[in-house]
Amino acid sequence: MAKYSIGIDFGTLSGRAILVDVSDGSEIAEATLEYKHGVMDEYLCDSDIKLPSDYALQHPLDYIDVIEYCIPKIIKDTGVHKSDIIGIGVDFTSCTVIPTYGDGSPLCLSQEFNNVPDAYVKLWKDHSSLPYANKLTELAKTKGYDFIQRYGGAISSEWLIPKIWHILDNSPDVYKSAEYFIEAADWIVWQLTGIQARSSCTCGYKAMWHHSEGYPQSSFFEMLDPKFSDLLSNKLNAPILPLGTKVGRLTEYWADKLGLSTDTAVAVGNIDGHATVPALKVTKPGQLLMILGTSACFMTLDQRELEVREIAGYVKDGMIPGFYGYEAGQACMGDHFAWFIKNMMPYEYKLEAQRLGKSDIVHMFDLAADLNPGENGLIALDWWNGNRALPCKEGLCGTIIGMNLSTKPEHIFRALVEATAFGARKIIDNYRKYGLEINVIHAAGGIAEKNPFVMQLYADVLDMDIKISGSPQAAALGAAIFGAVAGGAYDSVTDASDKMGKLKDIVYKPDSTHRDVYDALYKEYCRLYDHFGRDSDTMSKIKLYK
Amino acid sequence: MAKYSIGIDFGTLSGRAILVDVSDGSEIAEATLEYKHGVMDEYLCDSDIKLPSDYALQHPLDYIDVIEYCIPKIIKDTGVHKSDIIGIGVDFTSCTVIPTYGDGSPLCLSQEFNNVPDAYVKLWKDHSSLPYANKLTELAKTKGYDFIQRYGGAISSEWLIPKIWHILDNSPDVYKSAEYFIEAADWIVWQLTGIQARSSCTCGYKAMWHHSEGYPQSSFFEMLDPKFSDLLSNKLNAPILPLGTKVGRLTEYWADKLGLSTDTAVAVGNIDGHATVPALKVTKPGQLLMILGTSACFMTLDQRELEVREIAGYVKDGMIPGFYGYEAGQACMGDHFAWFIKNMMPYEYKLEAQRLGKSDIVHMFDLAADLNPGENGLIALDWWNGNRALPCKEGLCGTIIGMNLSTKPEHIFRALVEATAFGARKIIDNYRKYGLEINVIHAAGGIAEKNPFVMQLYADVLDMDIKISGSPQAAALGAAIFGAVAGGAYDSVTDASDKMGKLKDIVYKPDSTHRDVYDALYKEYCRLYDHFGRDSDTMSKIKLYK
Repeated sequence: MAKYSIGIDFGTLSGRAILVDVSDGSEIAEATLEYKHGVMDEYLCDSDIKLPSDYALQHPLDYIDVIEYCIPKIIKDTGVHKSDIIGIGVDFTSCTVIPTYGDGSPLCLSQEFNNVPDAYVKLWKDHSSLPYANKLTELAKTKGYDFIQRYGGAISSEWLIPKIWHILDNSPDVYKSAEYFIEAADWIVWQLTGIQARSSCTCGYKAMWHHSEGYPQSSFFEMLDPKFSDLLSNKLNAPILPLGTKVGRLTEYWADKLGLSTDTAVAVGNIDGHATVPALKVTKPGQLLMILGTSACFMTLDQRELEVREIAGYVKDGMIPGFYGYEAGQACMGDHFAWFIKNMMPYEYKLEAQRLGKSDIVHMFDLAADLNPGENGLIALDWWNGNRALPCKEGLCGTIIGMNLSTKPEHIFRALVEATAFGARKIIDNYRKYGLEINVIHAAGGIAEKNPFVMQLYADVLDMDIKISGSPQAAALGAAIFGAVAGGAYDSVTDASDKMGKLKDIVYKPDSTHRDVYDALYKEYCRLYDHFGRDSDTMSKIKLYK
Repeated sequence: MAKYSIGIDFGTLSGRAILVDVSDGSEIAEATLEYKHGVMDEYLCDSDIKLPSDYALQHPLDYIDVIEYCIPKIIKDTGVHKSDIIGIGVDFTSCTVIPTYGDGSPLCLSQEFNNVPDAYVKLWKDHSSLPYANKLTELAKTKGYDFIQRYGGAISSEWLIPKIWHILDNSPDVYKSAEYFIEAADWIVWQLTGIQARSSCTCGYKAMWHHSEGYPQSSFFEMLDPKFSDLLSNKLNAPILPLGTKVGRLTEYWADKLGLSTDTAVAVGNIDGHATVPALKVTKPGQLLMILGTSACFMTLDQRELEVREIAGYVKDGMIPGFYGYEAGQACMGDHFAWFIKNMMPYEYKLEAQRLGKSDIVHMFDLAADLNPGENGLIALDWWNGNRALPCKEGLCGTIIGMNLSTKPEHIFRALVEATAFGARKIIDNYRKYGLEINVIHAAGGIAEKNPFVMQLYADVLDMDIKISGSPQAAALGAAIFGAVAGGAYDSVTDASDKMGKLKDIVYKPDSTHRDVYDALYKEYCRLYDHFGRDSDTMSKIKLYK
């Protein structure tokens, strides 16, 4: 009798659930629901309460709606019996934070706080805590706290502690009343099982937690603000479990509500990008997972704890249990191309795209694909959204060098694509510099699946084979893999990934005739990278009058 | 009784004549004629003789047509009596070269050579002699010929000797049969007077001639090619007269043909940009003439011969008799803006321009004008067509730094305008560094006359007053001023300029509230200038695969 697991994937605008056959990973049903409140970045819940410009909030009941709508639907659509659904895995955007009471109910649902923005879910891309992140980084560095080195020397404003610190300062009542601050991934697991357990992944990458050292000592937090004295002992105080662990089983309430069994296991929560790792069979050193979306991330594994600098972070059991998971990111990828289409695509090009019946971006990709490497005579720095490897360098910004009077839009567009590929190569070179081995790339995300030109260009620039995700919803498939392990179908995530993970048959192989030109251009990219990223402060100086 | 002079101005696509009252410079008539053959850069004279891609030729009879059409027309239109027309001045694009027989008739008009491209007029922008210019520069430098320093350390492919050298190699018969190679300006004067006399301006700026040293010694030319042994003694051998000198009077043939008197004096020939100097009352040290066209040039005067580096050149009596005239250039100005409109102006912006009933470029200028200095957060290097101050540095090209996801087209467009202003400031700083005094700017050209936004921005960036040409055809007015002097109306070009030169009443004055931001941005411009223009070879490296 076939057995199944459910993967629930919470994105920025919608959530989805998929039902997966644990024997081979085949996805037999899927349901998606958009969040009713979406991303609240102007007003709070259709009220007239205006939000500051850097806020991005969500409503926790939208997540509950996803569960209540999607799971019954995939069961109904397939007729699978509840006793055959052995596990559930959850992945979520991160760091997305919910302040809750002791029983897990969000503060924002109470009478007292339903008009207080800081009591709502702070979405990953809420950047209101930027000054707190900068202050935290500076203090950790000047006072010699080593943990900062695990995070490339800087704590992001998107992460947990800056977000809580901002709430402490801005809404002291929310801080005081919140018995817990918890990642949404872990909160969903808490809801489903009645057990609060946090994930080695969310805590490791986003909350400065280390598997043997734990959180930084309480004195560090009290140095930030004396009112943080209860942060570790109360508000973050919960067991932290390695990825792949079963937290518990569905509560009766949820089993009844969803038409599932109370025997169904629930795995520890995960971050969406990190859940993608086993979905593409990345389970051992030498492999790199590259996820190409609006931004891009680069994940790889090693048994050793290597002090790799200029990355987002590294965490034991943070991707695949038993390994240190290394994560680095590129702040601008799809965003970069969308910017070009909106701001630099000329009139005649748009008309031509219409005439050809192509979307604007497809037309530009096609024109760029017709050029040879180096033919554009241009080089760009892909820093339209900064550079995550150099977080302490202010004002890093996009750059295009090489225009002359015969430079055309497709020359520039191709330079932007090449710049993201050079940025990826820089990240991989940095991994290698610190001792990580990278031999093959597995790629997920819309561009990986749909754009052979970009993927071939990446294979050429990176001089490595690139394999492509077999599933268009790899994060959800990854969540289902963790659910399958929690449900006992496999002894390890690695075994489960081996059977349930999926890659397409196609492999993009580097064209050796392009190697010399890309090596030469990459060398210039690196010189510009070092010049503007390390030696010169021109980029911050030109931003002073903005 | 009022007296008049005629200025004849030969441009790239057309020629014009104006009739000017010598007492006050008022322009009482004007006639223009487009060249029948225009610029021949694909085929020779509508034949099927294909031209190499870097050729730009003209037909000498087109110039004759201008004289024969325009001068009778301005006389007829005004009814001025021929005895009241005391002088004629001529200005021409340069270096525009004609190979002739001993009597001045062009080789290309003969049966023998009318199918030979190299026998035609080589227009200033014919760049087929680029390798010869580079070889000449390199040999002059390595063999220690000092004259090269008067030209910023490099001889341009647009100039006389590289053009002749290319003809010598490519069409030895043309070289052999040409008894003279002469600038078109000087050729016109020869035609009108029957006297071959060359100009201190054309020979000084374009033929490496010096008022006391003469041309480089013959051994230099023979080092380039032994066949050059007859170059100085024959093919360039003619008297060289200072600007403002009368060469002679109209021949009977031309007096009859044009309805003029044989008493009418003809001044020594001039270059169009250089003729503009007295038309804007630039006659003494401390003033700078800035001509803003497709490219830009910057002229100033001093009694002293200063070894100014990184300029196009300096020549005694090259602009105003009695002074050394210093010339520097910016390779990209209007071209730069036209490139943006063609290649970077998005669809919606074009629709909006149409809706507002504005031209594309006016719409972009208006949007750029609405921004504050520094608000765009961008800086650009205006090197879309190279950098004339650094002619030996290969591959210099356009650069834009500072983009992020909120950068808009008008931000970039304004950065391009600012970059040309910073480039101008760099040229002025360089003049000052070598001891020239610059206190006020006089500006000519379409942008100077029509674009208050750009002129105010220049005044702010340069932190100097800018006065604007009072005549829309300043080169022709300048030619008429030289004609008036040759005709005896004034004792000096300075006196004539004082009476006949014209400035508008408007003066653009620097806005002191913009000084700090532009000083700061200019400092970054200079850092980038030195980095890419001197220290780094990134720009040439990225061009290797084009």
